[in-house]
Amino acid sequence: MAPRKLNIAISGLGRMGARHAINFYTRTPRANVVAAFTPEPKEAEWAATNLPDVKIYNNYEEMLKHPGLEAVVVATVTTAHAEQAIKAIEADKHVLCEKPLSTSIDVSQSVVDAAAKKPHLKVLCGFSRRFDASYRDAFKRMQTGSIGKPSVFRSQTCDKLDPSGFFVEYARFSGGIFVDCNIHDIDLALWYFGQDAKVKSVVAMGITAVSPELAKYGDVDNGVGVVEFYGGKIATFYSSRIMAAGQHDMSEIIGTEGKLVINGNPQGSLVEMHEPNGIRREIPEHYYGRFEYAFVQEANEFTAACLDNTELPFKLEGAVQAVRIGCALQESLRSGKKIWFDEQGNRIEKASL
Amino acid sequence: MAPRKLNIAISGLGRMGARHAINFYTRTPRANVVAAFTPEPKEAEWAATNLPDVKIYNNYEEMLKHPGLEAVVVATVTTAHAEQAIKAIEADKHVLCEKPLSTSIDVSQSVVDAAAKKPHLKVLCGFSRRFDASYRDAFKRMQTGSIGKPSVFRSQTCDKLDPSGFFVEYARFSGGIFVDCNIHDIDLALWYFGQDAKVKSVVAMGITAVSPELAKYGDVDNGVGVVEFYGGKIATFYSSRIMAAGQHDMSEIIGTEGKLVINGNPQGSLVEMHEPNGIRREIPEHYYGRFEYAFVQEANEFTAACLDNTELPFKLEGAVQAVRIGCALQESLRSGKKIWFDEQGNRIEKASL
Amino acid sequence: MAPRKLNIAISGLGRMGARHAINFYTRTPRANVVAAFTPEPKEAEWAATNLPDVKIYNNYEEMLKHPGLEAVVVATVTTAHAEQAIKAIEADKHVLCEKPLSTSIDVSQSVVDAAAKKPHLKVLCGFSRRFDASYRDAFKRMQTGSIGKPSVFRSQTCDKLDPSGFFVEYARFSGGIFVDCNIHDIDLALWYFGQDAKVKSVVAMGITAVSPELAKYGDVDNGVGVVEFYGGKIATFYSSRIMAAGQHDMSEIIGTEGKLVINGNPQGSLVEMHEPNGIRREIPEHYYGRFEYAFVQEANEFTAACLDNTELPFKLEGAVQAVRIGCALQESLRSGKKIWFDEQGNRIEKASL
Amino acid sequence: MAPRKLNIAISGLGRMGARHAINFYTRTPRANVVAAFTPEPKEAEWAATNLPDVKIYNNYEEMLKHPGLEAVVVATVTTAHAEQAIKAIEADKHVLCEKPLSTSIDVSQSVVDAAAKKPHLKVLCGFSRRFDASYRDAFKRMQTGSIGKPSVFRSQTCDKLDPSGFFVEYARFSGGIFVDCNIHDIDLALWYFGQDAKVKSVVAMGITAVSPELAKYGDVDNGVGVVEFYGGKIATFYSSRIMAAGQHDMSEIIGTEGKLVINGNPQGSLVEMHEPNGIRREIPEHYYGRFEYAFVQEANEFTAACLDNTELPFKLEGAVQAVRIGCALQESLRSGKKIWFDEQGNRIEKASL
Repeated sequence: MAPRKLNIAISGLGRMGARHAINFYTRTPRANVVAAFTPEPKEAEWAATNLPDVKIYNNYEEMLKHPGLEAVVVATVTTAHAEQAIKAIEADKHVLCEKPLSTSIDVSQSVVDAAAKKPHLKVLCGFSRRFDASYRDAFKRMQTGSIGKPSVFRSQTCDKLDPSGFFVEYARFSGGIFVDCNIHDIDLALWYFGQDAKVKSVVAMGITAVSPELAKYGDVDNGVGVVEFYGGKIATFYSSRIMAAGQHDMSEIIGTEGKLVINGNPQGSLVEMHEPNGIRREIPEHYYGRFEYAFVQEANEFTAACLDNTELPFKLEGAVQAVRIGCALQESLRSGKKIWFDEQGNRIEKASL
Repeated sequence: MAPRKLNIAISGLGRMGARHAINFYTRTPRANVVAAFTPEPKEAEWAATNLPDVKIYNNYEEMLKHPGLEAVVVATVTTAHAEQAIKAIEADKHVLCEKPLSTSIDVSQSVVDAAAKKPHLKVLCGFSRRFDASYRDAFKRMQTGSIGKPSVFRSQTCDKLDPSGFFVEYARFSGGIFVDCNIHDIDLALWYFGQDAKVKSVVAMGITAVSPELAKYGDVDNGVGVVEFYGGKIATFYSSRIMAAGQHDMSEIIGTEGKLVINGNPQGSLVEMHEPNGIRREIPEHYYGRFEYAFVQEANEFTAACLDNTELPFKLEGAVQAVRIGCALQESLRSGKKIWFDEQGNRIEKASL
Repeated sequence: MAPRKLNIAISGLGRMGARHAINFYTRTPRANVVAAFTPEPKEAEWAATNLPDVKIYNNYEEMLKHPGLEAVVVATVTTAHAEQAIKAIEADKHVLCEKPLSTSIDVSQSVVDAAAKKPHLKVLCGFSRRFDASYRDAFKRMQTGSIGKPSVFRSQTCDKLDPSGFFVEYARFSGGIFVDCNIHDIDLALWYFGQDAKVKSVVAMGITAVSPELAKYGDVDNGVGVVEFYGGKIATFYSSRIMAAGQHDMSEIIGTEGKLVINGNPQGSLVEMHEPNGIRREIPEHYYGRFEYAFVQEANEFTAACLDNTELPFKLEGAVQAVRIGCALQESLRSGKKIWFDEQGNRIEKASL
Repeated sequence: MAPRKLNIAISGLGRMGARHAINFYTRTPRANVVAAFTPEPKEAEWAATNLPDVKIYNNYEEMLKHPGLEAVVVATVTTAHAEQAIKAIEADKHVLCEKPLSTSIDVSQSVVDAAAKKPHLKVLCGFSRRFDASYRDAFKRMQTGSIGKPSVFRSQTCDKLDPSGFFVEYARFSGGIFVDCNIHDIDLALWYFGQDAKVKSVVAMGITAVSPELAKYGDVDNGVGVVEFYGGKIATFYSSRIMAAGQHDMSEIIGTEGKLVINGNPQGSLVEMHEPNGIRREIPEHYYGRFEYAFVQEANEFTAACLDNTELPFKLEGAVQAVRIGCALQESLRSGKKIWFDEQGNRIEKASL
């Protein structure tokens, strides 16, 4: 008898949604994509060609009623993530929700609260780097003590400059560069420092090197953030929209006895070109070029966890903590203030500062 | 209606056969693994667990009669490749045959002859590197003229030292290090220099640095070969069984205006470790760690070619040419002689040499 | 006739002083080391062997009176830099003074003031990286517009962990990690952003990952600083005393059209070792392993400027500006405060912050 | 009292001679350049400016009589090396002779014979790579057993394509690509395998990828050579005149327990450029960019050996052995023959081959 497959639906067939759809459709053997939701005729057309025998809905609620549906991937615009995730949870579906749950801490928390009421469901926030082989390799090495006590974490999410200015309008809803880009790096800090790491202070600065229009949304195209944790740990984050060569996401975990670097030397393929003006290599243009296999891994592990009722590799609560830190960085960027927290996570004012 | 899938069988479930089976089973959406052949009870057991609903045969001929079967992957021991491939062809099945077709030129040719009688069938020799993204990237760059005229090709297949001495016994049937290891590099030379490149002379030398027992099979653990082509091109090959750090397969295409290097700096993951004695990275232990995705690509492209009746990316004839060169290198190694060919491919004796 | 040589004296024959002495003695053809000052008998002994025919003084003022003396290298402990430099200037000698001029802004300024009264003298602060071929290469590329407008500068000075704890006692007088280590990075920021770049705000954080005793001197073993400049530029600095692998000083200049990385992949020699646990390279243990040739270049250029009365490659005033920024970072580290400056360089209090 | 210096003369002030002159003049503290020989007025003019107070001769024999002269650097055209070296030896001068001693084995041997009669003299063949820090680092590591028994040596000397075609005319006297370029790699093989390594067979092939005119001198612009040694060791050499990116000399020592790579990833400065079409680094244009410090080291060590009567780091005899192998490769290239030697170094004919 053929093994049981997970009946899953994809909500949103934009850039990331389409990738999720294809990954679940063709590279996740235990998943069975049965439905998809999109209000966009163009995306529905794409689905007709690329997802044959998948039922396309233009109404999210209708899709949730698809017979036999067990799980939903929420990959719509950020502003719809939380609402759709909660609706799916309430309809008793497992959920893989793209990051961030929301750019609002409270709204993010509401997803966690909804999930808490249905402990039998698997609800995952799509921090794709958690599924990346290299980040996992680094984590495993750290766990075995190879770098002593992790003390400083440095991480960056740097996008290739998109001269179309797409990201300026995108900034209207993105939550800002720290919530949109560095959210991954923040999540990594919580992974490597421990999910219970407590933030002591936060400060951020930024500039608009190429897109002064970002100012109207209180955003920047290059942001620098520092997060101090109780217990003597520090994380620094850098995000940029102006990289010439391509996407360069990298991280460093510095411990008392060693250091791990992840993707210090980015590359696209394994080809190096010797040319009259030197030796050159190309690097991925976009995050998907770097993290394609992490997304496939994510799809497969989420599917397995739903089918086998096994634990997901990390808890949903962390997604709120990441948004909380991202929002604090964004606030510090805008106000120029350094922000302090007590060990219970409450904001404190340092009068003398 | 669900798209049609290719009904395929896997012959041989050893190390490579099992990988092919899993790749076709879980990572080739358009393929439907319906049968497998293995005479080994242990492998049959493995299949029961890992290939549920696949019919396991312990008789190859019986397997060929499996209802609806359309294609066969031949991944048994090298000595059985040709016979099984020919039987499959005669049974009107598409064939993906692991390399080499045979360690004998004549036997290899017999597969090509069989295939020639059934032009409607897709018969592919599994030169996995042809499906590797980096080798393809290099080929594409070369095609667009970025390095001028390709003139020197240097390529190596270097295995991690296996202290078990497995490869000594393996040498009994492998055809020798040039036929077993460098066959890939030879095939690459033919790809980059052109499938019609004509060999002018061949010379090889080798040593047994760690395994003097190899001498009994006329083999070595480090081999060096040089192949001169008519038209002013040279290829050099290096194969080794004694690499300390891991598998290191690399190639260089040197042209009149530039050079392309493929995998000059091998790496396992993207993690670099800073340790008290320096900076370190690990590299894949085996060829599969390097070429996993190439095998998946191969499975998908072979499947697509069968279903859509499109051309395979390269012709079967090249596999005979590769064996011919590999055998000449092996002969030169054993005899100490340099071997010459005329432009028609016939051996010539240079009396004065 | 033999060309005229510069009669020079070295003050201080400790670790760095001895290196300067040897560099001027054996690798600076136009210099003639005639005298040296050290109060340490051990160092005097060393000089007797290694600097034959150089007159050794145990009194700095006496040394200044050495017949024919034209220039002095001040390489004593930081606390003596300024006083000795000023005395040499007043005695009408050219001066190459090790960095920093002082850990105090005012004292640093007093050296500049003294030099201003003797415009015919060459007075150089030993920012050795300014003489490094790679940093100069980067500067030249930036100057020709290859990266557009430089916008973000990231730089680190990271020392190999010295388990002897030497740097703890050293912290008593060093001025703190930002003044001691990052002073170089700060100077580089001023070089690449322009010597007239005006600081807008400064913030720093740090931890004591391996040496909690540093707390008694208000210092840390890992420091992170961010400096915002008027005009939309940001510099981030990282300093560490706990690197496992060795010294790793690196910098990045991120512009609107490209990025330059200096020493992203440190290495000692050009040897890579393939070993059973991977591929490894060693890196310099100390800054001198990285910057040896920069010091030699510095010695030669300083000598040439004195002899030929040509301009030094950068002005002394910058050294005060660097100390000013370093001290602000150190203060921010200690107070936890973010510090603001107006465009005239005056401290401002942002009441609301 | 000032330490005694070695009175030295430079013969030949062409490209390499001028570099030697400057190195001995300004970067070799214990040397005193007192004389130089050049028949070229232009070079004499250059010397007047750059080597003030050095006596310039246009007659080599006259120069040898310069009062107090102790040592001579022979850096003229290859064809004059041996004669000048012998004359200097006969005049009782120490000699540093540029490589090769001669393109003829017999002539090379005559220099060794001359030197043998004056055992108190230091006579060095300028194999600059022997003085390179990285090659020495590799040798030291090998000596301590870190790679087991060295078994395969691969080495290349690859020049940047010079479109002026200079090297075509140069080939008239160079002795051919194996004697001119690979002589260094051959010498390295003898260093790493042991100066007493005995050649068993030699074979070479080559092509003229960009300069068919080389054929008239029996030379090629890309050469591949394999040398088999008695005792189970193999060396492969590659030389090229057509590198696009610049000079790339690299070597690999493969042992039974590890591998050492020297200069696998060439670079000019430590700057990496991130540009719209990827990440790029430049590499040295010429061998001097790679080996500058090795030449300086050579000058200093030769000087020290002469002054202190200490042993040179390697024996002159090896230079003949290197020429012998280079000439055999060149002969094999021209004849197409594989060449065999017995263990006494005599040529043998293998009738059956």
